[in-house]
Amino acid sequence: MEEREISQAVIGRLPRYFRYLGDLKEAGVERISSQELSELMKVTASQIRQDFNNFGGFGQQGYGYNVDFLHKEIGNILGLNKEHNLIVIGAGNLGQALGNYMNFKNRGFIFKGMFDVNPELWGKEVRGIPIQPMDKVEAFVKENDIDIAVLTIPKTSAVEVAEVLVNNGIKAIWNFAHVDLNVPEGIQVENVHLSDSLMKLSYNLERYSQEQK
Amino acid sequence: MEEREISQAVIGRLPRYFRYLGDLKEAGVERISSQELSELMKVTASQIRQDFNNFGGFGQQGYGYNVDFLHKEIGNILGLNKEHNLIVIGAGNLGQALGNYMNFKNRGFIFKGMFDVNPELWGKEVRGIPIQPMDKVEAFVKENDIDIAVLTIPKTSAVEVAEVLVNNGIKAIWNFAHVDLNVPEGIQVENVHLSDSLMKLSYNLERYSQEQK
Repeated sequence: MEEREISQAVIGRLPRYFRYLGDLKEAGVERISSQELSELMKVTASQIRQDFNNFGGFGQQGYGYNVDFLHKEIGNILGLNKEHNLIVIGAGNLGQALGNYMNFKNRGFIFKGMFDVNPELWGKEVRGIPIQPMDKVEAFVKENDIDIAVLTIPKTSAVEVAEVLVNNGIKAIWNFAHVDLNVPEGIQVENVHLSDSLMKLSYNLERYSQEQK
Repeated sequence: MEEREISQAVIGRLPRYFRYLGDLKEAGVERISSQELSELMKVTASQIRQDFNNFGGFGQQGYGYNVDFLHKEIGNILGLNKEHNLIVIGAGNLGQALGNYMNFKNRGFIFKGMFDVNPELWGKEVRGIPIQPMDKVEAFVKENDIDIAVLTIPKTSAVEVAEVLVNNGIKAIWNFAHVDLNVPEGIQVENVHLSDSLMKLSYNLERYSQEQK
């Protein structure tokens, strides 16, 4: 399959295309040229064509792209047409925010369970899903065909919890813990290190204010 | 200033160095060689040396780096030794999670205000900060010397709110809204598009499972 060789840089840009095409579709736009898409997204038309050529090009450029078709195709490439069962580990504010996240279900992510070590949270519900004790997680993952775990727990426990999850069949981890996880090959990890992102903002703020002096 | 030319790729890696060095410091490690740091962080020692050379190299490599010094220096480069006043727009679960975020203050980010359009939230407190109506935000930003705004609001209002904030003196936006903001030059934006990140995870999960077939 040609798709195997597609770089993570291209993959990283697909969700943004998907987002813009979804907005265009919502706005009732039926066709769009690479030039128009280029102006909207502030990337070059040649980059768009190159990115799309990785997937066969998505149809005639003379007439522009069919927005609905392109949106659906990119969604399929992203695997959004498949359903994935997902659990959230850590039921603090961030865990609850992610559990409540409206887009999950539309995109094939089925929120199935939520776990926390804090007894005060047990039994409380987030979108109808009861928060369970952590010692229930192993059996739950096995019995409910869970693919994805979202980690919103402190870095001190994240490494160990990730290991337990992977041993019980989790295939992908969306990691919000402030630590890099060591997982076996074939287990997918996507890190969202919020403090790293805030520090980058701080750097750019500082640098710009120095330049102005 | 030489630092002006440092690429965003290098900048993007600094917070990760800062995080590892902070962990080493906590663990009582005093010195570390680029080779040891390389093994720990799973990047090449030559990349580490190249990255550090952008900032003068941080001391003798023969004896390894002084962990405490290096941690402090990188923190200073990231602007974490300066204080920045920050407000959160949107007091839903995500906004509250970020408002509660423990690291803010240690790193020079002072959480000053929180705003939401929902009257039911007004007066409620997050870390002692009362949630205020959105129509108070302009005066608040002007009077309290606010540098950074965190946006956790729907994409439909984010563009307009960002414009208002920038007009009132906000210099940096940490953007969690699912939309790319158009801001004047000199205004720093750091996007955290959570759904983009989840879609990338979905792609890699799907691709890997296809390869296994």
